[in-house]
Amino acid sequence: MNLTTVDIYKDLWTIRQNSPLVHNITNYVVMNSTANALLAIGASPVMAHAEQEVADMVDIASALVINIGTLSREWIDAMFKAAKKARQKGIPIILDPVGAGATPFRTDTARDLIRSAAPAVIRGNGSEIMALSQAGGTTKGVDSTSESGQAVESARNLNLAFDSVVCVTGETDYILSDSGVLEVKNGHYLMPRVTGMGCTASALCGAFAAVNPDFRQAAAHAMAVMGIAGEIAAKEAKGPGTLQLHFLDALFLMSEQDIHDHLTV
Amino acid sequence: MNLTTVDIYKDLWTIRQNSPLVHNITNYVVMNSTANALLAIGASPVMAHAEQEVADMVDIASALVINIGTLSREWIDAMFKAAKKARQKGIPIILDPVGAGATPFRTDTARDLIRSAAPAVIRGNGSEIMALSQAGGTTKGVDSTSESGQAVESARNLNLAFDSVVCVTGETDYILSDSGVLEVKNGHYLMPRVTGMGCTASALCGAFAAVNPDFRQAAAHAMAVMGIAGEIAAKEAKGPGTLQLHFLDALFLMSEQDIHDHLTV
Amino acid sequence: MNLTTVDIYKDLWTIRQNSPLVHNITNYVVMNSTANALLAIGASPVMAHAEQEVADMVDIASALVINIGTLSREWIDAMFKAAKKARQKGIPIILDPVGAGATPFRTDTARDLIRSAAPAVIRGNGSEIMALSQAGGTTKGVDSTSESGQAVESARNLNLAFDSVVCVTGETDYILSDSGVLEVKNGHYLMPRVTGMGCTASALCGAFAAVNPDFRQAAAHAMAVMGIAGEIAAKEAKGPGTLQLHFLDALFLMSEQDIHDHLTV
Repeated sequence: MNLTTVDIYKDLWTIRQNSPLVHNITNYVVMNSTANALLAIGASPVMAHAEQEVADMVDIASALVINIGTLSREWIDAMFKAAKKARQKGIPIILDPVGAGATPFRTDTARDLIRSAAPAVIRGNGSEIMALSQAGGTTKGVDSTSESGQAVESARNLNLAFDSVVCVTGETDYILSDSGVLEVKNGHYLMPRVTGMGCTASALCGAFAAVNPDFRQAAAHAMAVMGIAGEIAAKEAKGPGTLQLHFLDALFLMSEQDIHDHLTV
Repeated sequence: MNLTTVDIYKDLWTIRQNSPLVHNITNYVVMNSTANALLAIGASPVMAHAEQEVADMVDIASALVINIGTLSREWIDAMFKAAKKARQKGIPIILDPVGAGATPFRTDTARDLIRSAAPAVIRGNGSEIMALSQAGGTTKGVDSTSESGQAVESARNLNLAFDSVVCVTGETDYILSDSGVLEVKNGHYLMPRVTGMGCTASALCGAFAAVNPDFRQAAAHAMAVMGIAGEIAAKEAKGPGTLQLHFLDALFLMSEQDIHDHLTV
Repeated sequence: MNLTTVDIYKDLWTIRQNSPLVHNITNYVVMNSTANALLAIGASPVMAHAEQEVADMVDIASALVINIGTLSREWIDAMFKAAKKARQKGIPIILDPVGAGATPFRTDTARDLIRSAAPAVIRGNGSEIMALSQAGGTTKGVDSTSESGQAVESARNLNLAFDSVVCVTGETDYILSDSGVLEVKNGHYLMPRVTGMGCTASALCGAFAAVNPDFRQAAAHAMAVMGIAGEIAAKEAKGPGTLQLHFLDALFLMSEQDIHDHLTV
């Protein structure tokens, strides 16, 4: 099975039509840019982390995105509570193991969440995915020190162990499930110079998984749209500052023709 | 009484001259954009939520803006403490009941705050205002599922019960007090595609209420300036990303002529 | 000793080459813009505040930036823990006493951190530095009510008492150590209209101190690059909104020629 413009645009169109509610329990750094990316693509973002309300919020949501970028004990408790409700309700969970490998606290929390929540999609950079599968990857803070390609074996192990679709992003994005690997080669070198682009990628996986029950395809479509928006934005940007905004505009304005013209798989 | 360019610009000018300190206890998603909007308009924003300092911060502030967008127990305690001090000191409190109706935790917290704090202004979208007055509005996360016009009756009930000015924003903004209803029809369809625009509206109410003791007029002036800035910004923006920045520029640069040319009431 | 283009660019080049990991425990308002500024300049930012991981994160970092802009008890505990580890490891600590003088809680916390952590650099506006040395400066929220020049005596006292380099920013930036005072006169009047520019200045001090063990020079170089980026950005900006992004672009694109053409000391 290959990625096609028609399938990608169909998901994008459905998101724009249905405006699925995506519940994010994410880090402080990226909340604003994540919410803006979800709005730009046509989804309806909500951020809520209080133990007293996460289950109620999951109850009206179509996807749950858990991102461990700035953890604390209370937030972890809320993540587990929300994940439990999401499983009961049957909505997809996306896990972004930000900085796994950088500290034991992050690595352990990410592993516990995977075991407990059985995410539909785990999305991380090469270092994070390698850290999760104990393949010895190292993470420098939250930036990757490994190419995504080096992490494909680790991603396969993770998928085998937990059945989650694993999405390793980098110059090439690899999206693995037991049906095989999809590759997306869209994107631009300026994108990692904007904070939270990986977190945005995970949030977009949530929006696509909310409308497409084939989670490998959903994640691949999200990565394609993400990368294409970055390429379109880069044409008008002079650096990472202006890139951010043109990226949001590109998500908002993306047409089927844009996908057709840029898709590189 | 009608809204006039002269009155609106007088408030804006006073904010720019006096640079009132607006204390915000707000949500993580919008802190940055809220602070930037307040700076752009000429006010002096401060964010502080620690129980140990909220009373001291209120003590040097000219308005207090409470926004429940990302709640937790400790923050709620600080909100009550700050509100109590603000009442004692006699500075206006603005309440933004983000997501009221989405979860009982939010609805209940917003109601408790209204009862306890007696806000000068309650600003919300149609769904939130309907949820607060138990008129059966539903909220999809933090985005409105109702037109602002549908919430006018609920707003009237809220005003009758608690004496707060109630500001329902949407395509038309309705600002109600016992002196009647003001309507502002400025704004642009791209604005709801930027996260936190409602929160910015509430923060601007804080800045205007800090310089104008007629809170209905202050809220209406804030909504007019907000909507006009959005319209000016939209002329240069291609989508929601670029809109954000041109919006801040428009707040910063707004002249009496701009208000005269755009005001739609 | 004077500031020279060659020395400034050498530090900037080293940051771009080595991409030092800068660990920030900072406030909610500016996390995104701080991370973006560090990425734009070529450093690798990480934000982590959990007591369970701050020591591990410091362990892989090259500088620690502590910013008290939005405090709470748990975060303060983490700041002390991280600072202790940073001293043991011998990496520079930068302290930004945001809002010192506005509330006793902030002033006291900043003083306790200085006593305990012995920061390499303390960077604040005039009011904050005066509040720290009890010279009677007043702070209006987080904005300065004093010229940086008024705070030079206070800065000298702070330096004498704690041996930290003290960097007072304003229209002229004064960077003091026992080797004397450096002055940087770059910058643009629009910069204080963007929230978190001071916090960004502190974070950049972290990046420069990570590659230059002469902390007075590192801080002065950071202020020069910051101010020059602001001046370059202002040429393309219409207001504070667009300034932010052109500022990030300017950090990213800054050449030795740019420094040569703009440096004003």
